[in-house]
Amino acid sequence: MDKLDLALLKALRDHPRAGPLELSRVTGVARATVQSRIEKLEAAGVITGYGPDVDLNAAGFAVQAFVTLEIAQGALYEVRDELERHPAVVEAFATTGTSDVICRMAARTQGEFQEALLEVNRSPHVARSTSVVILSTVVASRVPPLLARHARGGGRAPAFRDAEAPRQG
Amino acid sequence: MDKLDLALLKALRDHPRAGPLELSRVTGVARATVQSRIEKLEAAGVITGYGPDVDLNAAGFAVQAFVTLEIAQGALYEVRDELERHPAVVEAFATTGTSDVICRMAARTQGEFQEALLEVNRSPHVARSTSVVILSTVVASRVPPLLARHARGGGRAPAFRDAEAPRQG
Amino acid sequence: MDKLDLALLKALRDHPRAGPLELSRVTGVARATVQSRIEKLEAAGVITGYGPDVDLNAAGFAVQAFVTLEIAQGALYEVRDELERHPAVVEAFATTGTSDVICRMAARTQGEFQEALLEVNRSPHVARSTSVVILSTVVASRVPPLLARHARGGGRAPAFRDAEAPRQG
Amino acid sequence: MDKLDLALLKALRDHPRAGPLELSRVTGVARATVQSRIEKLEAAGVITGYGPDVDLNAAGFAVQAFVTLEIAQGALYEVRDELERHPAVVEAFATTGTSDVICRMAARTQGEFQEALLEVNRSPHVARSTSVVILSTVVASRVPPLLARHARGGGRAPAFRDAEAPRQG
Amino acid sequence: MDKLDLALLKALRDHPRAGPLELSRVTGVARATVQSRIEKLEAAGVITGYGPDVDLNAAGFAVQAFVTLEIAQGALYEVRDELERHPAVVEAFATTGTSDVICRMAARTQGEFQEALLEVNRSPHVARSTSVVILSTVVASRVPPLLARHARGGGRAPAFRDAEAPRQG
Amino acid sequence: MDKLDLALLKALRDHPRAGPLELSRVTGVARATVQSRIEKLEAAGVITGYGPDVDLNAAGFAVQAFVTLEIAQGALYEVRDELERHPAVVEAFATTGTSDVICRMAARTQGEFQEALLEVNRSPHVARSTSVVILSTVVASRVPPLLARHARGGGRAPAFRDAEAPRQG
Amino acid sequence: MDKLDLALLKALRDHPRAGPLELSRVTGVARATVQSRIEKLEAAGVITGYGPDVDLNAAGFAVQAFVTLEIAQGALYEVRDELERHPAVVEAFATTGTSDVICRMAARTQGEFQEALLEVNRSPHVARSTSVVILSTVVASRVPPLLARHARGGGRAPAFRDAEAPRQG
Amino acid sequence: MDKLDLALLKALRDHPRAGPLELSRVTGVARATVQSRIEKLEAAGVITGYGPDVDLNAAGFAVQAFVTLEIAQGALYEVRDELERHPAVVEAFATTGTSDVICRMAARTQGEFQEALLEVNRSPHVARSTSVVILSTVVASRVPPLLARHARGGGRAPAFRDAEAPRQG
Repeated sequence: MDKLDLALLKALRDHPRAGPLELSRVTGVARATVQSRIEKLEAAGVITGYGPDVDLNAAGFAVQAFVTLEIAQGALYEVRDELERHPAVVEAFATTGTSDVICRMAARTQGEFQEALLEVNRSPHVARSTSVVILSTVVASRVPPLLARHARGGGRAPAFRDAEAPRQG
Repeated sequence: MDKLDLALLKALRDHPRAGPLELSRVTGVARATVQSRIEKLEAAGVITGYGPDVDLNAAGFAVQAFVTLEIAQGALYEVRDELERHPAVVEAFATTGTSDVICRMAARTQGEFQEALLEVNRSPHVARSTSVVILSTVVASRVPPLLARHARGGGRAPAFRDAEAPRQG
Repeated sequence: MDKLDLALLKALRDHPRAGPLELSRVTGVARATVQSRIEKLEAAGVITGYGPDVDLNAAGFAVQAFVTLEIAQGALYEVRDELERHPAVVEAFATTGTSDVICRMAARTQGEFQEALLEVNRSPHVARSTSVVILSTVVASRVPPLLARHARGGGRAPAFRDAEAPRQG
Repeated sequence: MDKLDLALLKALRDHPRAGPLELSRVTGVARATVQSRIEKLEAAGVITGYGPDVDLNAAGFAVQAFVTLEIAQGALYEVRDELERHPAVVEAFATTGTSDVICRMAARTQGEFQEALLEVNRSPHVARSTSVVILSTVVASRVPPLLARHARGGGRAPAFRDAEAPRQG
Repeated sequence: MDKLDLALLKALRDHPRAGPLELSRVTGVARATVQSRIEKLEAAGVITGYGPDVDLNAAGFAVQAFVTLEIAQGALYEVRDELERHPAVVEAFATTGTSDVICRMAARTQGEFQEALLEVNRSPHVARSTSVVILSTVVASRVPPLLARHARGGGRAPAFRDAEAPRQG
Repeated sequence: MDKLDLALLKALRDHPRAGPLELSRVTGVARATVQSRIEKLEAAGVITGYGPDVDLNAAGFAVQAFVTLEIAQGALYEVRDELERHPAVVEAFATTGTSDVICRMAARTQGEFQEALLEVNRSPHVARSTSVVILSTVVASRVPPLLARHARGGGRAPAFRDAEAPRQG
Repeated sequence: MDKLDLALLKALRDHPRAGPLELSRVTGVARATVQSRIEKLEAAGVITGYGPDVDLNAAGFAVQAFVTLEIAQGALYEVRDELERHPAVVEAFATTGTSDVICRMAARTQGEFQEALLEVNRSPHVARSTSVVILSTVVASRVPPLLARHARGGGRAPAFRDAEAPRQG
Repeated sequence: MDKLDLALLKALRDHPRAGPLELSRVTGVARATVQSRIEKLEAAGVITGYGPDVDLNAAGFAVQAFVTLEIAQGALYEVRDELERHPAVVEAFATTGTSDVICRMAARTQGEFQEALLEVNRSPHVARSTSVVILSTVVASRVPPLLARHARGGGRAPAFRDAEAPRQG
């Protein structure tokens, strides 16, 4: 990851669904470079997709929650399979701490959330669950600031720095 | 949200960066319909962007963690401003429970993560923090199964059902 | 509290806003007895009012929660005054345990609940709060079964037992 | 819910067991309006009853407690049935958090409370319970302040405001 | 309990193994009164014994601990029987909170304490235990200050007050 | 501590306020031995007093509780002084664990207990307290079984064993 | 780390204070290889010293404990300096979780341990501490099994395997 | 342990793998004394070995963690056997508190650590585990300061004090 990779990620985010030509214009580097860099980022698994990014709240899922699960007898893979089959589970991670899995769940109403929670708890591999409801988004999902901090200033820097300055004619 | 909206979201995900023509072909509905539906989803705030979806691990951020913060004296907005300025914070949510904010943080090494954690804790508005390291992704971030469960079968269902069946010629 | 007191409480609940005459008919005891017993229950502080019982959910308060507060420096009375002034607080109790006060709060939306929670936490006398959202009512507020168990069978029992048996003519 | 609904709820509370005529006089609106509004509030499930409100302490139940239950294997409905049959349970709610159910229990003595607690814990569906004893009421159960905050100022506001001002003659 | 009862309890503590005559002299009330009062306190179960008070530490039990037990399936009485048979258990109480029983245990060494703890935990009725070691006595077991606060000043107060003042010849 | 010490402690407990002669008869050892042994146990600090053992419940203190205190800034000695001055504190111990001090408190009513708890919490040296109410005594305070297990069988054993067998003549 | 490195670490442990000649004989590789490998392991910081390994218990430190510290305001470096100056601290680590630092402490008696704990807690940078006493060693400190699992079988394997077989002549 | 023992331990640490002659020179006491003292420390179990001290991080084990285990049914010895067989367990201690065993584990990657954790949790004797990742070493493992504090100044003190002063010629 160098500054150009970063600029491309930013350009892709700011100009959704833009083609290579537009990205070349925005970043100030040649179209071929844009294309080869994006291909590299995709091949390296850095870019894994292009959304669409869905706001679950706007899509009618008013109740979102973090649910932490304590797994019985180390049955993580069994729980993974159950969570994957459960449509209310948006994402899930195995973590350190007391709870073995933290998952994000979404439901349209509190009643539906309760049902989803009960289904998850009925698993013989879930010993205990704890849930907290999300009240608001404090910092929306993002990556750029983190990447910016660590991007290496590469050899192409001078020209690239130009690319970030306002462009004339 | 009806079944066509859902099919479009799925098509957009499966055919990243595809244009309306290709989406029309994939979903089996007219290009104009595709376009107007997507515009509606964007206007309603359901679609908020088109990635790029970045795998932080592949991008070199090997240490990811959930950090829960207890906020002092209800200073949520001050903490929000601090977290927004902090590049290691990937996303953050205000929640019910004992901890007022759950944030996801990422760092390249355990040392960098420790530094980020200390910076967050130095805030006079953070009374206490608890962190758990993400060991693996159990269910990767997704939305479709949830939406599929609740999509309303609309009037256009018959033709649309065709669209989901395998296409000949 | 004897069985007649209990029967009266039950009659008052089942026949809301009924007058002494109707209560006399329902319980099978003389109107004067009904009246004197009710007056005694009111005077003893057993009956403290006659509703109206409001279903907060039906009244538009979709988010209800138990919020437990840890009080700083034993400032229970200061917190009591603050909670009394706070319209989102439905009821509150001082308890044993880690949390000094458990209060029930209600709000129309998660956003409003978050605001109410922040206001409560901004108090210099609240050291820490924990909240859990009510997902559903498992047993609706009630008293009769408890009283029934302990009602003394008094001297008037025979006639009164009649009153409970189906009445002819 | 508008200001008149609110005024009616308040009038019903302050003038327990008053008839429509008295409520009309108190609120300053026509008797027919009073009656139709109350009927609407009852039909909408906002008013669910008219007490009697019983002070458990005055009725001899000196020990009251919040008991939180962790439910085994998601057996919420089985626990609900058990709690409903248990006379010491005054009310119970399913919640988010670590405990699945919070119930309020009452007993005449600590010994009786212990017995009730043991009975609840003997259920195969209760994995664990935690209890805290209520030491005092900090804010007595109430609804008006909350409703007052959110009542819509309707078209009838001017006359109605009069109704709240002290009445002459 | 009045002030004389209190003075007697204090005299009994300060003059261990003193006879009625000496107690009469110390408290300044007649020997017959002393005797009848002590008999009443014994009959009422207020005085349950006369030690000997043993300092477990001095007796060679260097490791003392509070052990809290979570009881499985409400099996309090079974656990009581087991604890009674266990010689390392000094006293035990059923309590509210998360732990159902708090017991004080003593052992001569950390190794013996560990063995005792394991034995208690092997019970099928003990779901979980938590132990904290006593590092020092902060306030030694006592009752007088508490009683003094609440002793009723009875009719015999004047003479009795004399008894507390220094006595001459 | 050998078997005779143990037999003496037991005899002292079973024959409260007995003199050396009676103890000699009960234990079957010479009066001089009884006397010298008791003096040794007192001098070694094993026997610290002779009660009276007071049942706080029978003495009218219906509410007893374990209160655990988290001490601010390691101010254990300041807290000790405060607890010693507080009449509701029956005993207190510094312990390992999260709470620095565990104390037993007693009060006549829940209201008085709440007041005592608030007073303790008002101390600037108490950061946080947690309380659990004692519902019943599971194992009454005792020492003999523990001592019996560890008493050394000394050279005097044969004669002493006689002393434990039933005596004829 | 390959199998030879591992064999050397094992030989160094099993033959404490052995010279290169003896290690050469034990491992069956040339003395020069032994020497160069050990130098490499030291240079790479894998071997950081050669004890002496001290058994704190045998050295008279009967009370050992894990003490977890919550650090105030992210002041980890200040706490590190304080812990380094504190002789009772044997080792300390910054960790994820609720507690920021876990340290192992040792003392000769419970009284000395209490004093050490109070000193640590008096720091303005320590918000809270929790301690657990070590009752016994379950698995003594070791590294070989872990290394053995991961040692790479290098090119020198055949001769080296001989070295592990019993030697003749 | 006197000051000379301490000086020897320090000399052994500072001059790893030094022989008796060098230690005699460093400490300023006769070679025979050095040798007999070291033999005594070894015989008393104070010195248990001479490393080698391995830095697990440098040896490629980037993920180290404290894992606390709650043991089911007091099965400590069964768990001990399992942990001893598990190569990722570096050391383990039975402790007071909620968790019965605290063990230090090491792994090369987060994935390997997760696998090791799951294996430990699959034991029927492990009821629950909690893990925290070590982010950095705050105080490296050491013993001297603790010993120094408590070393007895023995009869040889004068000459020995010389030994600590800089030596001429």
